[in-house]
Amino acid sequence: MSLVIVGSVAFDTIETPSCRKERIVGGSCTFCALAASYFVRPGIVAVVGEDFPKATIDFFKKRKIDLRGLKVMPGEKTFHWQGRYGEDPNQRTTICTDLNCFENFRPEIPAAYREADILLLANIDPDLQERVQEQVRKPKLTAMDTILLWINTKREALLKVLKKVDVFFANDEEIRMITGERNLIKAAQHVLRLGPKVLVLKKGEHGVLVFGKDLQFGVVAFPTETVVDPTGAGDTFAGGFLGYLDKVGRITPTEIRRAAVYGSVMASFTIEDFGIGRYLTLTGRDVRSRFAAFKRLAAF
Amino acid sequence: MSLVIVGSVAFDTIETPSCRKERIVGGSCTFCALAASYFVRPGIVAVVGEDFPKATIDFFKKRKIDLRGLKVMPGEKTFHWQGRYGEDPNQRTTICTDLNCFENFRPEIPAAYREADILLLANIDPDLQERVQEQVRKPKLTAMDTILLWINTKREALLKVLKKVDVFFANDEEIRMITGERNLIKAAQHVLRLGPKVLVLKKGEHGVLVFGKDLQFGVVAFPTETVVDPTGAGDTFAGGFLGYLDKVGRITPTEIRRAAVYGSVMASFTIEDFGIGRYLTLTGRDVRSRFAAFKRLAAF
Repeated sequence: MSLVIVGSVAFDTIETPSCRKERIVGGSCTFCALAASYFVRPGIVAVVGEDFPKATIDFFKKRKIDLRGLKVMPGEKTFHWQGRYGEDPNQRTTICTDLNCFENFRPEIPAAYREADILLLANIDPDLQERVQEQVRKPKLTAMDTILLWINTKREALLKVLKKVDVFFANDEEIRMITGERNLIKAAQHVLRLGPKVLVLKKGEHGVLVFGKDLQFGVVAFPTETVVDPTGAGDTFAGGFLGYLDKVGRITPTEIRRAAVYGSVMASFTIEDFGIGRYLTLTGRDVRSRFAAFKRLAAF
Repeated sequence: MSLVIVGSVAFDTIETPSCRKERIVGGSCTFCALAASYFVRPGIVAVVGEDFPKATIDFFKKRKIDLRGLKVMPGEKTFHWQGRYGEDPNQRTTICTDLNCFENFRPEIPAAYREADILLLANIDPDLQERVQEQVRKPKLTAMDTILLWINTKREALLKVLKKVDVFFANDEEIRMITGERNLIKAAQHVLRLGPKVLVLKKGEHGVLVFGKDLQFGVVAFPTETVVDPTGAGDTFAGGFLGYLDKVGRITPTEIRRAAVYGSVMASFTIEDFGIGRYLTLTGRDVRSRFAAFKRLAAF
């Protein structure tokens, strides 16, 4: 067991200007684990209700995701998030959140996972992230993701977790809100003083910047006409990034650069369909071929 | 004579949230020519009034810019633009425009310039751009830049010029306005059907994308904490891009990629000071060293 991901497995109801999808499978842990599964066999820690589809569980198994940390809560319903995207797919509004089985979720890391090399605290309540941080013995690398909601409502708890992670995945708005800095580069440097050794700044359609000691890397997003549903793009970025690092087993500046490209590759696939739709047919060959396309895109 | 640039030489009054600069030297032609002067000896076609400072003319000469096409209009005043930037340096408002000597400007290409290899129609009224297009015999490459004002007020004239150029420099908002497409990649593909062989999509702090037949290239902007004044960034991008192409004398996909990086290099310097301030001390060594920094930034 090497990469362990803690986060949400959920139903999402998604509205885009042209379409509405009711209760499709989503959640930060789902997206991260699916993307990572193209590189390694990640273990997940999450909770679902009785209503969670067996077909999806079977799909997770087919992708060789380790489900020993996935709890099914009898008599409970799965966490449900509903959101709407505007004409600009970067702008999204949460319409409602039904915590359901997530309300009393207290993540327990199975004994088999406690020696994990890489721990990904995908987006969930920072109090739960902290609880997990305490349970995993000595990961080589701990990474975290979050959302604006926690920055605004649980700032102290979030900063406490942030202080002890190695890699922080965030977008422009999030680091501006954390630091109060409008200039992105100043905000990024500020974040590096709050704990993380590496900041991965996800800028959606504008690509990604990576900041660290002796490390500055940037790559544009894959130019695509097909943006069906941006949900999960950031999570699959994190999954691809850490899945790749876990696979190569070396955490060097060179591998971090490649990891950021693999993250971009996975995110570029995710947005091509609703929810996890693209993963139903995505092959390892597709992933390798898009990595090669990124190489051509960025070469000079 | 190889690269000829037609555009404005002007005074700019610039307000940023922290500073105001009164009547400093600016103008599309000024910025383009200064950036290009790090690669070749560009010739300019423009007009100024009697009030234009001799010190700046001397500075242009020192940069080996060919001024045979620069008219000084006796008894007239130089074109003056006043603009304001908000907290987000990508958002700017024009406060006023005094055309002055520009009002009756009819660009005449000096005989010595008519065999130009590369013609850059920097941002001016598309009617004037068309007039110039007719006067230069057979350039290997014609490029144009524009602003939203002309797209909104002189659409037909602009599309006529666009139809006959090889390279079009534009930003997100401009190509969305020209094509009516919200998705940037669709908008870019649409622009390529309007005439240009290459579209250089300038995304400011988010970098640049280049689209063409058998060509797709992207590089992020240079991560900098110092954004003093974004005026002229796009012009100096164009100047660096075409100056480099003129210098190497080969217009191949490989050289176009490098040209886009040199354009990014020049733009990254421009924003470090007000107006043309950065160019007063910028050296060829600075340019080469930032190109190397871009190499490190983008390598994976």
